[in-house]
Amino acid sequence: MSLLVVGSVALDSVETPFGKADNVLGGSATFFAAAASLLTPVQLVGVVGSDYPMEKLEPLAVRGVDLAGLERADGASFRWRGRYRHDLNSAETLETHLGVFSHFSPKIPDQFRRAPFVFLANIDPRLQREVLRQVERPRLVACDTMNFWIESRRPELLDLLEHVDLITLNDGEARQLTEQSNLVKAARWILARGPRHVVIKKGEHGAFMFTESTVFFAPAYPLENVFDPTGAGDAFAGGFMGYLARTGDLSEPNLRRAVIYGSAMGSFAVEQFSISRLLDLTHKEIDQRVRDFHRLVSFDQDLNE
Amino acid sequence: MSLLVVGSVALDSVETPFGKADNVLGGSATFFAAAASLLTPVQLVGVVGSDYPMEKLEPLAVRGVDLAGLERADGASFRWRGRYRHDLNSAETLETHLGVFSHFSPKIPDQFRRAPFVFLANIDPRLQREVLRQVERPRLVACDTMNFWIESRRPELLDLLEHVDLITLNDGEARQLTEQSNLVKAARWILARGPRHVVIKKGEHGAFMFTESTVFFAPAYPLENVFDPTGAGDAFAGGFMGYLARTGDLSEPNLRRAVIYGSAMGSFAVEQFSISRLLDLTHKEIDQRVRDFHRLVSFDQDLNE
Repeated sequence: MSLLVVGSVALDSVETPFGKADNVLGGSATFFAAAASLLTPVQLVGVVGSDYPMEKLEPLAVRGVDLAGLERADGASFRWRGRYRHDLNSAETLETHLGVFSHFSPKIPDQFRRAPFVFLANIDPRLQREVLRQVERPRLVACDTMNFWIESRRPELLDLLEHVDLITLNDGEARQLTEQSNLVKAARWILARGPRHVVIKKGEHGAFMFTESTVFFAPAYPLENVFDPTGAGDAFAGGFMGYLARTGDLSEPNLRRAVIYGSAMGSFAVEQFSISRLLDLTHKEIDQRVRDFHRLVSFDQDLNE
Repeated sequence: MSLLVVGSVALDSVETPFGKADNVLGGSATFFAAAASLLTPVQLVGVVGSDYPMEKLEPLAVRGVDLAGLERADGASFRWRGRYRHDLNSAETLETHLGVFSHFSPKIPDQFRRAPFVFLANIDPRLQREVLRQVERPRLVACDTMNFWIESRRPELLDLLEHVDLITLNDGEARQLTEQSNLVKAARWILARGPRHVVIKKGEHGAFMFTESTVFFAPAYPLENVFDPTGAGDAFAGGFMGYLARTGDLSEPNLRRAVIYGSAMGSFAVEQFSISRLLDLTHKEIDQRVRDFHRLVSFDQDLNE
């Protein structure tokens, strides 16, 4: 089933302890689409400036990312420059130029309006809400957000929560949004405000998925080399939503598998700069990583010895 | 099978955001024994001063902790005073009085020397080594350590590593010891120096167990109320070693289960001050928590749909 994503398409310049990359593909919708398109057809809505190297998106188009909703506007593309020190868990933002992204107003093409799965990547909650007015009864709507919106658009974000089925956010954002330092309490707070599922991402420490009555946890895969953490959260969301859209199954066991596919995609994304690793990834490698995740956490209970 | 632990027996005064407790039972051997004795007979070696309230140890003795190796020396007992702020992951030490513990020289009673399982809790690595000279070919020797010894007794600690089968340490200590910020590399570094198993504890973020060819991960149990994190790591070690000693099985599947029992004991320990929760714990509650851990991480791979 097709999966609609609305978010940023950017150019990133990144420095890590292991190297640097200039003007490479970035943005939440880009990472999301790169991961999700390994599993299901993706429809992307976003905006780039007249300076954007469109040919670099070709590999995504080839893989089934429909770019009909990617608007080209006069002006400069969204650019982000950041650096990671040895603590790869937090980026230091050196420069942000929103460019044409600051006037982004998502227009969902007619042929995208019936996508059964919708992901509202991290943009202004007013725009996320606007997207929902343009789509026709999707089976599952998920959104992401960030500290900036939690601070500056709190009422709009709370309103959005009433209209989504699932939210993904990181642990710091969950604490900020809910003013609860305990993540179980934070999840409960969010669940009471609309979403039936809350996915709390903890970076290198894994991810929780909470529902009213269940908790699932997936570790981050213990990699020997984390090259560039940029986009890991969006690749996670892409793997998660891509798996749900591919299977069309919203049962708890399948949602758990989706978290594992998300974790797998996140773990691949960080192995190289930008979406490079996601682009050369094979299904065999994905299946192998899912098996590795299973081995990583499995144990027999054997309570009756 | 019996399990020998050598470590500190102290009096703690702790302040958390949820309350305070003065002069309660503390020390690594105390927390370890409280957890392990739920699973197997424990033999404790340590030292207390003439001021120690011995009657408070009675519940441990009743539960099968043999205190024949607990020396009473003239002078003051080891006292620690600490505080946790809202970030419950790190304690702020306000006072440490080593007292008689500063001259501790472990003497293993004859009847303890054949314990098949030995845990060298966090004490001077020279003393840990000394204990090993007094025991007779245990089946499994594990040790813990801390930043202070890594800094001040590095050569002695490296020597000790050659004589233990397993080490437990937290992520910060693993990084400090190995000068590797990546935990997979840190584990590999340690495995190359003696131990066949490395357990890296990450507090609220769970624990890894590494061997030459396998990795296992157990999350920390997502508790809604963490009351006092003091002793969680020692309770983890007690549950882990206690389970191994009870089953006498050193296979990989059983070591994995032992990590889960350790995680379960750690999760109980933090629910109340001192060893209170470990003292009133039932086997039914332990089994239930192990089942809850299983539910928390389990998923079907279903790779062939």
